Amino acid sequence: MQKNLLTISKFVAPEIIFGLGALSQVGESAARLGIRKVFLVSDPGVVNAGWVEKALSYLKEVGISAVVWYNLTTNPKDSEVAQGVNRYLESGCDGIVAVGGGSPIDAAKAIAILATNGGQIKDYEGVNKITSPLPPMVVVATTGGSGAEVSQFSMIVEKGRRVKMAIISKSLIPDIAIIDPLLLQTKSTRLTAATGVDALSHAIEAYVSLAATPLTDVHALAAIRLIASNLRESVACKTNLEAKSAMAMASLQAGLAFSNAILGATHAMTHQVDGLLDLHHGETNGILLPYVMEFNLISCGDKFVHIADAMGVQTTGLGKWKAAEKGIAAVRRLFRDVGIPEKLSQVGLKEAHIKELSANALRDACLVTNPRDAGVEEIEALYKRAL
Amino acid sequence: MQKNLLTISKFVAPEIIFGLGALSQVGESAARLGIRKVFLVSDPGVVNAGWVEKALSYLKEVGISAVVWYNLTTNPKDSEVAQGVNRYLESGCDGIVAVGGGSPIDAAKAIAILATNGGQIKDYEGVNKITSPLPPMVVVATTGGSGAEVSQFSMIVEKGRRVKMAIISKSLIPDIAIIDPLLLQTKSTRLTAATGVDALSHAIEAYVSLAATPLTDVHALAAIRLIASNLRESVACKTNLEAKSAMAMASLQAGLAFSNAILGATHAMTHQVDGLLDLHHGETNGILLPYVMEFNLISCGDKFVHIADAMGVQTTGLGKWKAAEKGIAAVRRLFRDVGIPEKLSQVGLKEAHIKELSANALRDACLVTNPRDAGVEEIEALYKRAL
Ligand SMILES: [Fe+2]
Ligand SMILES: [Fe+2]
Repeated sequence: MQKNLLTISKFVAPEIIFGLGALSQVGESAARLGIRKVFLVSDPGVVNAGWVEKALSYLKEVGISAVVWYNLTTNPKDSEVAQGVNRYLESGCDGIVAVGGGSPIDAAKAIAILATNGGQIKDYEGVNKITSPLPPMVVVATTGGSGAEVSQFSMIVEKGRRVKMAIISKSLIPDIAIIDPLLLQTKSTRLTAATGVDALSHAIEAYVSLAATPLTDVHALAAIRLIASNLRESVACKTNLEAKSAMAMASLQAGLAFSNAILGATHAMTHQVDGLLDLHHGETNGILLPYVMEFNLISCGDKFVHIADAMGVQTTGLGKWKAAEKGIAAVRRLFRDVGIPEKLSQVGLKEAHIKELSANALRDACLVTNPRDAGVEEIEALYKRAL
Repeated sequence: MQKNLLTISKFVAPEIIFGLGALSQVGESAARLGIRKVFLVSDPGVVNAGWVEKALSYLKEVGISAVVWYNLTTNPKDSEVAQGVNRYLESGCDGIVAVGGGSPIDAAKAIAILATNGGQIKDYEGVNKITSPLPPMVVVATTGGSGAEVSQFSMIVEKGRRVKMAIISKSLIPDIAIIDPLLLQTKSTRLTAATGVDALSHAIEAYVSLAATPLTDVHALAAIRLIASNLRESVACKTNLEAKSAMAMASLQAGLAFSNAILGATHAMTHQVDGLLDLHHGETNGILLPYVMEFNLISCGDKFVHIADAMGVQTTGLGKWKAAEKGIAAVRRLFRDVGIPEKLSQVGLKEAHIKELSANALRDACLVTNPRDAGVEEIEALYKRAL
């Protein structure tokens, strides 16, 4: 703690509306931001589940009209964003509402950037490249994992280079984030597991991040505790609303933590696999996280003991390193219980990919805050261990 | 947790800049909000300590001029606010910076209300009475206690009625809150104790509040833990920067908790004593809190066990009620160690005051979220027990 207290840190969060039925606040929220015609960004799965129709009815109640756009794939692409912004600009909308998981929310943020800043989305890769204020934005999170509803991140795949770009700016924090655990009920079992694993990756990476602060720490640990005792139940049963609520709260708090403390090597490496193979981001994180934890262990053993505690490990009487290792084992066990693959080869990665992936991971903004120095050799070794 | 998860909750926080030396961010922060001429609200003690001069130099660096106003007493009065807003309006300022503890920050908020909404400050007593947006506002917290730097509260004494009015609105959350633990070094020992006790009162009242949420709970418990292990050291030594930093972080987190979960009977009762006798708010809270905890105990025993844990009590093996009582005893012990009086009679309250105080406490907005129902008889009995 001493170290953290001796640096100046910043913490930013949107206004948060949380709870079962919170979707009903979307109309009032958009109206409060002065929006009169909404560009509603979603994806086909969310539309099929009926949530977009519901959101539209709440918007209509307060006299807000909407143009719906959901021409999106799992990891949003630069070309999709370019189409989206054209549609936004010709629609005469004056604000954005995203309804969905990480993909539609990240796409909505990218559309918002181009709507007022112009150019191409790759112009904004990196930290603080946005100059003009964005249109007002409300996001409704439906997956409980990405944390995109509260974060200053947008992740967009550049198809030409086959990399996932990280765009990081306070301007990307939505004005209002609505988290309604009811919306988590319509997710597939596989997506429930993957998004929960993504949230745990956010919490653990933020907790050991070099940019962690006392404020991000409390959210990171709270998220780990909630996930350790609710992810299995949430995966086991679609209608377990208590588990869904706990996972939505965990995702939110993991989002608050990583948005302000940034991430680490797991995400830096996962983003490259996302860009190459278009897999589910959460599953890739789940494969890589335990290996990265083992690698990072020596940089901050005490923090890994706190992680073990939060994972539910009985650490009293154990030595530091034993306790820390039991925490990593508890993470592995949780991931196995919810059906996450254990090796990258199981999801289609080949040894031949590793050189290119490692070079790209080294340029990812998330690597900067990893607590253990990692050059290209260390990254390659991690990919190989996880292959 | 079940109950909390089944209601829709809202959480709002300002942008937070925290750390030793964070005062240096005041110029850049005001500039970022588009302020060109600042109305700087402070109090005589803070001016004497030299912090206002420092703030002015940082503002000047970015080309922002300032009008300084610090005609304020301990509990800011309606008449002082009226003078302040006249000065603001004739000064041609386009934004407000507050530098100080709860009093100047609350006064700055009240001036901001009248600057754009007109009328008298008593017109805004209660919840959500503000209609027009306020001028941009940066606050620099110098006392680490009030939580006013992040809260949606402003407390102003109406001299005619001798009551402290609670004005509650999201509009009162500053745009940017700067918390610099260096500024806590110039506080008197007595003020250090009183503001720390105020922060603990915020954390405990927010934790047991009927409006508590999982998000406010993590901040409340983190604040209790920090105060239990740092308030004594902070009171003992002006230059213990680690203790000052921890107390500033505790105050901030207690502020995030109570701003969103509101408070309870302790504050409802303290506000009336503040209004009548112009005592230090934190000391009055310190006298009343243990009695109110004893009264509230049966409403949520489990939460009181968590409070005991956070206070550092060894609760394993104890029954619920025993553990909960040890938590209250730990609070009493801490308050005695830092020199808080134990009885209201020691600070000048007379039995003859209690009828009027109780009637007024019943109308205080903070009483609504107290976890145990309290009518006028219960409030009178609590004042008498603490007399
Ligand atoms: Fe992620
Ligand atoms: Fe207070």
